Amino acid sequence: MDNDSSSRIAAELREWIETAAPGAKLPSTRALVARYGASPVTVQKALRALTAQGLVESRTGIGTFVRAIRVARPHDYGWQTGALGSPQNRMPQLSSALRTLPNDVIALHSGYPDRELLPERLVRSAFTRAARGDAAVSRPPAAGLPELQAWFAAELGGATRAGAAPPTPGDVVVFPGSQSGLSTAFRALVGAGRPLLLESPTYWGAILAAAQAGVQVVPVPSGPQGPDVDELARAFERTGARAFYAQPNFANPTGARWSPALAEQVLDLVRSHGAFLVEDDWAHDFGITADPAPIAAQDDGGHVVYLRSLTKSVSPSVRIAAVVARGPARERILADAQAESMYVSGLLQAVALDVVTQPAWRTHLRHLRHQLAARRDLLVGALREHAPGAVIEAVPQGGLNLWARLPDSTDLPRLARDCESAGVVIAPGDEWFPAEPTGKHLRLNYSGPNPGAFPDGARAIGRALSEQEGSRRG
Amino acid sequence: MDNDSSSRIAAELREWIETAAPGAKLPSTRALVARYGASPVTVQKALRALTAQGLVESRTGIGTFVRAIRVARPHDYGWQTGALGSPQNRMPQLSSALRTLPNDVIALHSGYPDRELLPERLVRSAFTRAARGDAAVSRPPAAGLPELQAWFAAELGGATRAGAAPPTPGDVVVFPGSQSGLSTAFRALVGAGRPLLLESPTYWGAILAAAQAGVQVVPVPSGPQGPDVDELARAFERTGARAFYAQPNFANPTGARWSPALAEQVLDLVRSHGAFLVEDDWAHDFGITADPAPIAAQDDGGHVVYLRSLTKSVSPSVRIAAVVARGPARERILADAQAESMYVSGLLQAVALDVVTQPAWRTHLRHLRHQLAARRDLLVGALREHAPGAVIEAVPQGGLNLWARLPDSTDLPRLARDCESAGVVIAPGDEWFPAEPTGKHLRLNYSGPNPGAFPDGARAIGRALSEQEGSRRG
Repeated sequence: MDNDSSSRIAAELREWIETAAPGAKLPSTRALVARYGASPVTVQKALRALTAQGLVESRTGIGTFVRAIRVARPHDYGWQTGALGSPQNRMPQLSSALRTLPNDVIALHSGYPDRELLPERLVRSAFTRAARGDAAVSRPPAAGLPELQAWFAAELGGATRAGAAPPTPGDVVVFPGSQSGLSTAFRALVGAGRPLLLESPTYWGAILAAAQAGVQVVPVPSGPQGPDVDELARAFERTGARAFYAQPNFANPTGARWSPALAEQVLDLVRSHGAFLVEDDWAHDFGITADPAPIAAQDDGGHVVYLRSLTKSVSPSVRIAAVVARGPARERILADAQAESMYVSGLLQAVALDVVTQPAWRTHLRHLRHQLAARRDLLVGALREHAPGAVIEAVPQGGLNLWARLPDSTDLPRLARDCESAGVVIAPGDEWFPAEPTGKHLRLNYSGPNPGAFPDGARAIGRALSEQEGSRRG
Repeated sequence: MDNDSSSRIAAELREWIETAAPGAKLPSTRALVARYGASPVTVQKALRALTAQGLVESRTGIGTFVRAIRVARPHDYGWQTGALGSPQNRMPQLSSALRTLPNDVIALHSGYPDRELLPERLVRSAFTRAARGDAAVSRPPAAGLPELQAWFAAELGGATRAGAAPPTPGDVVVFPGSQSGLSTAFRALVGAGRPLLLESPTYWGAILAAAQAGVQVVPVPSGPQGPDVDELARAFERTGARAFYAQPNFANPTGARWSPALAEQVLDLVRSHGAFLVEDDWAHDFGITADPAPIAAQDDGGHVVYLRSLTKSVSPSVRIAAVVARGPARERILADAQAESMYVSGLLQAVALDVVTQPAWRTHLRHLRHQLAARRDLLVGALREHAPGAVIEAVPQGGLNLWARLPDSTDLPRLARDCESAGVVIAPGDEWFPAEPTGKHLRLNYSGPNPGAFPDGARAIGRALSEQEGSRRG
């Protein structure tokens, strides 16, 4: 084999180089061909390998020399792009909702509730208890800790309509966070190249997971009242899609909560097309003036695949979510989850279960509801007073976000820059659209730190909008 | 829209059904067409949706009736297989190495060290400390906790050969376990449909991750001395592969530790093909009579992508691994990791860092080395005495497993069954082959519970082998 000889030649030359003086000339290719009884191609291959390692350098027409300086040259990894090729799936940049910022800014961009909204005492004592328990040193089953599976099944089962069979603990697969649940659901239920219907706008993490899975994204127009059913029907007909991802309760970003009639229409459509509804109940613990009503509770035919996360409401350190699915869909999801992560830390599962089964968890959620209501109303009021150009079409009944419509002429990147110079961080709405944005929006999170500064934040947004208005007129 | 009308008809009929007596006859299709001003197709669609929900049943030629019994019928999810189609990538069954078993069996199948080999006291106190710290309620950066990134970089940097640039903390991406690192590496560096070279036999988790990523698996013959370099060279030439996955130190299952000469040859081959070596250093903490020597320490050209896991040596509850990569490869890996799981629990990262930076961790590893040596020698001795038909071609210098060659005529499934009836659980070697097994093998783990029973285990294996020998002769 050429390769074998070329690597043997490289190895022998390397030994020689180690004791040679920097700048020493290597024997000519012809001499090396003669010495090793190898072809010129093989010798050149060996020399190229040594060059790639920075051990020698060749000067055209003169020869190959031991490099004078062997360290600290900045590496050129350009060869890697050749090896990698273009990405098979272009993934969007990480959302601005994930940015971590210093404490002195007014942060309206985040996707995560501030620490003061977390059940901190419950989380800390659950970790302390778990540190003493079996879960600290044992390995749970791949589908999850049976007690936690049972809890997720019981929660959804409690809402299941009379006459329908509630989910069983075996229908539950535990994930290390809802992002993993989304990625797995899209890979397992749709697959690369096949169509997946998504609300537009929708959660940017779902857009990211869809890009990673390589599915063909089909946007379905949606708004503060939920998706347009006629468009949904057309999208099913036209694409032959067998799955629709949606957030029927307090959608991120629009805040939409589907009416019972809409829920029934969507479910009928999904059933008549032999399709799945991947229901992301991300804000289950964040009801304010309404309680979440999972669509999965209406279905026992295996059409709704239900995603429930605890990360945002319990703690970002407790990355635990569950997917509830029935039949072959559940098998596919479990197989993908195992190939992806084998199993989820049993200690995190034990902590999640500990927190949500404490009586104090219910008290916490009641308190949280009041805090979210006050924060939401404060931000809505401040925007209406100080930034009338940012229109809240519907005040959400739950969730963590306001979806503000801006004038169509708004220069969004400039607005974000101007606000940031004024110490206010906002999330431009474009990231929430799976295809082209259909308008200018801001997503403003009212669960971030320091709600006392919301009026100042609204003032800064109002000023930045007025300036754009002024410069257009001027 | 037909769909819209059909779901409206279904909704109205559903209201009627709710108050109707079981067995009541629905109006005829013709009557419904007239009542709703809809087409027969639309009416039929509505009726099919109600049938799918178990609310009505149709009797051919007679009509449609309200179902008598609406609950507790076993659901038929057959429609799902139509929606899902055949799996895009056939994934192997979960390995027997993951089975959880009662305490009274002799378990030689497991892939995980027994609890008595874990630094239990260190793990528990790290969790207790972390429960009081910031990590319990905060969100770390997507690539990992900076202090943990620095630790991984420093560990590999400490072994980096003189003259080469050591990795930086920014080269490290933290994962929720090494399985996630493998899946991401295969997706990000290879991608669906493209060739990936794998040792044969190799770790079954890597075979599973490769199947999930949909890469084209190319087996390269390997054994107790490591991969066959000529075959590796041929595989690179023939397939144009740009990546080779391998375990150069204490490979699972063969126990192979590459000689320095082999390591250099493989690295030269990888470099001359402009390719990546995905080095899985799974047994870094399990050296016995040799220390692991990562190939990544020989390379600063971005050719080696290094995977280091703490789950097996720290605790199954601390699912933490890292991938060290440079250049565009690192960017691709981070982008996939974020799309897959957004970020890894900061608390688990803090616990992992706490454990491995305690002085007692070093003491634990020294003690572990003696325990593994004693267990390995006990099992090797017992097999040589009681099961001479199971040949250990090379006693591994580290790791957790013995790779025993059996007579070619062995009926492996029968052997596994016979051993299990005798209370001994073994892992048939076939699962470790990415394509056809090239011989009959057992993988026997010496880090499981109750090493005192190893002689009994070996006796059971010996008896089962003799019985097969006897029945062939008889």
